[in-house]
Amino acid sequence: AAVNRKGVELESYAIEGISVGGHETCVIVPELKCVFDIGRCPSRAIQQKFLFITHAHLDHIGGLPMYVASRGLYNLEPPKIFVPPSIKEDVEKLLEIHRTMGQVELNVELIPLAVGETYELRNDIVVRPFATHHVIPSQGYVIYSVRKKLQKQYAHLKGKQIEKIKKSGVEITDTILSPEIAFTGDTTSEYMLDPRNADALRAKVLITEATFLDESFSTEHAQALGHTHISQIIENAKWIRSKTVLLTHFSSRYHVEEIREAVLKLQSKVSAKVIPLTEGFRSRYS
Amino acid sequence: AAVNRKGVELESYAIEGISVGGHETCVIVPELKCVFDIGRCPSRAIQQKFLFITHAHLDHIGGLPMYVASRGLYNLEPPKIFVPPSIKEDVEKLLEIHRTMGQVELNVELIPLAVGETYELRNDIVVRPFATHHVIPSQGYVIYSVRKKLQKQYAHLKGKQIEKIKKSGVEITDTILSPEIAFTGDTTSEYMLDPRNADALRAKVLITEATFLDESFSTEHAQALGHTHISQIIENAKWIRSKTVLLTHFSSRYHVEEIREAVLKLQSKVSAKVIPLTEGFRSRYS
Repeated sequence: AAVNRKGVELESYAIEGISVGGHETCVIVPELKCVFDIGRCPSRAIQQKFLFITHAHLDHIGGLPMYVASRGLYNLEPPKIFVPPSIKEDVEKLLEIHRTMGQVELNVELIPLAVGETYELRNDIVVRPFATHHVIPSQGYVIYSVRKKLQKQYAHLKGKQIEKIKKSGVEITDTILSPEIAFTGDTTSEYMLDPRNADALRAKVLITEATFLDESFSTEHAQALGHTHISQIIENAKWIRSKTVLLTHFSSRYHVEEIREAVLKLQSKVSAKVIPLTEGFRSRYS
Repeated sequence: AAVNRKGVELESYAIEGISVGGHETCVIVPELKCVFDIGRCPSRAIQQKFLFITHAHLDHIGGLPMYVASRGLYNLEPPKIFVPPSIKEDVEKLLEIHRTMGQVELNVELIPLAVGETYELRNDIVVRPFATHHVIPSQGYVIYSVRKKLQKQYAHLKGKQIEKIKKSGVEITDTILSPEIAFTGDTTSEYMLDPRNADALRAKVLITEATFLDESFSTEHAQALGHTHISQIIENAKWIRSKTVLLTHFSSRYHVEEIREAVLKLQSKVSAKVIPLTEGFRSRYS
């Protein structure tokens, strides 16, 4: 039987899903109602109302119409689907064809969100795309928690005084954004060197791909296919500030044992806890 | 754990797949390299090169782009996908969008096949659609084995004599088509009363839907949704000549125990062996 775990508990987030290179990638964070890429639309994804698409390869976007249809089938709120702006029109056409062919509604809010933009998911959570580098247009996403913090100059005042100043319309708090979860999708390791991606690398949980793990693949090969070799993560480990790194999207040729061996190598080089998402991978002994 | 069986052996055909009403339907006959509807494209479907689409609802067609892409990923022969003629153009558009978005080839032979037409899959197998009745355009498919049978008037002759006549160009055999497997897809039970569908009802294995199983659903309700209530199969049982009936597409509200109880009722009314495809259904006790 496949040696795998149904979801992992990372920095107080239960993270579930499956990510087998070229086959299907869908990572789910139920607590935030978030799904990163939709693979073949595993049933757990249907309950979540925010879907973030990193790029339009079928192993990441194939299940999108099914996700929308299934939420409709269960009378769930139409989902919000975030996409790189360059593919918004094609995704709309994709849905339109299924509406015509299947004579079904497919209610959805399709939101093109570009790198540099911010979108409020809840009053205490926002999302921002960040730049990644794949063979077709792609982007990652960082989910931030939002909290208000009293500005220093008011810290010494009493509750009532603060209330009074507040009512007078003076802004007395600063808005603090803390990166909670970053999801890269498919990308070369270059994203790690881009200073504008610092938040992704200091998110509590960094979910990043590591398609290639062993010497039979060169970093040039990984680069040419728009992917990351684990040795490149090791090489850039010094930029990682995250508490936990969840590795995903291993090539389907690997067994769970090989994945674990490779992860140990990375673990020895980073302070972050390194966890592989092994759902869907077989043991060498099964 | 879900009480289910990974595939059933019926009349010398190992039949696998999953069919949960509204969720996903994909029934696979590896021996014939055939897949009936593609649901979410379960991995076993990828190996088969003939895909028969009964209608364009997402729980039956959703995985089609993924199926084509996955065969390409494994360098398998481009598949032959048979569709009702009315949706051929839309399916072509669907693939075209994924080609553009994902910048991938997606090689496939898309074959519109109408009721009344015959297509040769192999020199000893042909397929013919048959008329079904769903809420959108739909059709079922019968797979026939083909064998040549010496015409009676030559039965008494010796091998050499037969060879001689044959070489002279005289047609000495009859082509015998025997219905092996019939697959309805979604439909009301009216298909059972159509004399042109006789072959479907005498196929060795009839794979038919039975979305509704109990009294909480009326036959009118089933009819309105374009589905079949098991009581209607019981009512028309006399038309069934098949050796085995594989029931599929039960509504997702049913547990395995309810499915089995309903199947027993049908079993008592037909000579055919009645088997439910329970993959994906839970036991009341899990």
